Amino acid sequence: MVKERTRELILLYRIGKDMSSSLKLDEVLEIVVDNMSKIMDSEICSILLLDKNTEELSIGYAQGLEENIVRQTRMRKGDPISGWVVEHGEPLLVDDIETDPRFMKKNQEKYYTKSLISVPLLVKDEVIGVININNKRTKTPFTKDDLRFAKGVATEAAIAIENARLFTSLEDSYMRTVLALTSAIDAKDHYTKSHSEHVSKYAVGTAMELGLSDKQIEDIKEACRLHDLGKIGVPDDILTKTDKLTANEWDQIKLHSLKSAEILRPLIFLGDVIDIVEQHHERYDGAGYPHGLRGEQIHMGARILAVCDSFDAMTTDRPYRKALSQDEAVAEIKKCSGSQFDPKVVEAFLRLLEKNPEIAKN
Amino acid sequence: MVKERTRELILLYRIGKDMSSSLKLDEVLEIVVDNMSKIMDSEICSILLLDKNTEELSIGYAQGLEENIVRQTRMRKGDPISGWVVEHGEPLLVDDIETDPRFMKKNQEKYYTKSLISVPLLVKDEVIGVININNKRTKTPFTKDDLRFAKGVATEAAIAIENARLFTSLEDSYMRTVLALTSAIDAKDHYTKSHSEHVSKYAVGTAMELGLSDKQIEDIKEACRLHDLGKIGVPDDILTKTDKLTANEWDQIKLHSLKSAEILRPLIFLGDVIDIVEQHHERYDGAGYPHGLRGEQIHMGARILAVCDSFDAMTTDRPYRKALSQDEAVAEIKKCSGSQFDPKVVEAFLRLLEKNPEIAKN
Repeated sequence: MVKERTRELILLYRIGKDMSSSLKLDEVLEIVVDNMSKIMDSEICSILLLDKNTEELSIGYAQGLEENIVRQTRMRKGDPISGWVVEHGEPLLVDDIETDPRFMKKNQEKYYTKSLISVPLLVKDEVIGVININNKRTKTPFTKDDLRFAKGVATEAAIAIENARLFTSLEDSYMRTVLALTSAIDAKDHYTKSHSEHVSKYAVGTAMELGLSDKQIEDIKEACRLHDLGKIGVPDDILTKTDKLTANEWDQIKLHSLKSAEILRPLIFLGDVIDIVEQHHERYDGAGYPHGLRGEQIHMGARILAVCDSFDAMTTDRPYRKALSQDEAVAEIKKCSGSQFDPKVVEAFLRLLEKNPEIAKN
Repeated sequence: MVKERTRELILLYRIGKDMSSSLKLDEVLEIVVDNMSKIMDSEICSILLLDKNTEELSIGYAQGLEENIVRQTRMRKGDPISGWVVEHGEPLLVDDIETDPRFMKKNQEKYYTKSLISVPLLVKDEVIGVININNKRTKTPFTKDDLRFAKGVATEAAIAIENARLFTSLEDSYMRTVLALTSAIDAKDHYTKSHSEHVSKYAVGTAMELGLSDKQIEDIKEACRLHDLGKIGVPDDILTKTDKLTANEWDQIKLHSLKSAEILRPLIFLGDVIDIVEQHHERYDGAGYPHGLRGEQIHMGARILAVCDSFDAMTTDRPYRKALSQDEAVAEIKKCSGSQFDPKVVEAFLRLLEKNPEIAKN
């Protein structure tokens, strides 16, 4: 008995560490369900999360349930089982769903026992969701020991889920604020908005010519949208200056790729996007900024962005000069292949222009 | 023996929950040290955190150490004890600091045993810090059981500390980005910058007249700096329009206090600041926006901000009209006392102007 209790506690301790080792909500939900199923020896396990605003429960993650059930299930306070658990904030061990006067309903075929466990996810006495467990693999009903164990896991799960929710929601808001910032920059400098769109079009096309993966292309697209973020720190009069920039002003401009990356760094989910943004002014020969990286040291996405960024800048009117023609810009890109730009990327970019001459015309 | 182990595990499980129940770094460090001291029955316990960039350890939180030691202690990889633990990523039970060949040094007087424990804080095999434990209250040396227990606590502590660090660093970056956003708005609309400064001056003065606490005054100051954040969402041509606004344009302007609050909401540490920002266009009679709150339902800070915001707007040239004189603005504020404004706040504000006539002159 004591040994059993010790084994249980060792498990709870391990699971607790496991659950709290991530701040990504999706990961945490998966870890919770996997561990709970394993421990309860159950075939079906699901986490329902409560939306505070709508007061609705929906399935955050499930094992052993069909995709359409996961997607469509909605429950409310007071509904049978999960709704009851939310309303009362108490766990539930139902021995026989067909005869329990509170929830009496014909057992659905997918459940081969009539017994189930439903435990609330409690954070400081507030219910944030429910974990439901059905179908013991032994085909026997759940026991009081099972319930105690499920409660133990749920206590730790609730904390891990709440932390991940807070972190994820902070990340979301941060990202929204970053996007508000890009709009603010677009408003400051009307050039940047259509510039980002053009560069994105070129960069995605070039990446496809180079046979990069969908994930890599997505990262490049996101980097195009965010690459000039750091210009928020550059005073307006430098950004829009029509005369030649002084060395000092030029230094301030040069900081923008570093500043963009600094703003984005805490958004871990952006991953490679941050490197691409930081390195989009590095040169293939190592003479770029901010770190003087060279060749393959520079992220492939950044090497692509460098070519496309320059091409769009050259073919657009800027405060300090008129736009070059497309042919002139192409000649310039070719001239800088191997020094400023990666030759492979230049080749791919030129192939893109050849195949889609209309791409550079609007 | 098994019973002892069970007791230990129950403790570890409880402490784990306790540690992970906060994402505020300061709180987590305090919880870790408190729990560790209690369990190890120690008089002195400290957490040293490793700065990745400088590779230096400094004390994040301590119990039983003097303030100046906490502030000044710096250690590096390879230094005795803590530096050794960081370098090797392994825990350390020193029986006698005076004879252990690795660390031999005269025991300082404040330690009445020569035995100590030092355990690494490991996150995915990376050392993020060290916990040091000295002086068992029983005045006996630490044992191998103590060491095992300390390792258990440290494993959970490391996860909790790392999560809190990630969260806190995300909050910091978010706040920096929010401040970059306020600069962007100042740049868009030159009126807002000096406006925020003026409003802050009036609001702090009024709050002092009303005898509010230092914390309340700090919140109001921060709210003044952030109250127009949501204007980032309002198109420039509406913000700077010289003609009368259409109903639709006015609706967009009205959204700004809600948008400001939305951007700030995830920054939990801002607390009341968010309410003040959200409610600064509510009216005392309930006819304001965004929620139509009335009287005491409106945060005191927001009631103060409402008066000061209006006064500064009236006494400043705006695109659509010239500034009123100070006397005219005062008359208008008095006229709106009890309808738009809280009479108590109006009184305090007028007292402020009377006592400091120069405050409104620049």
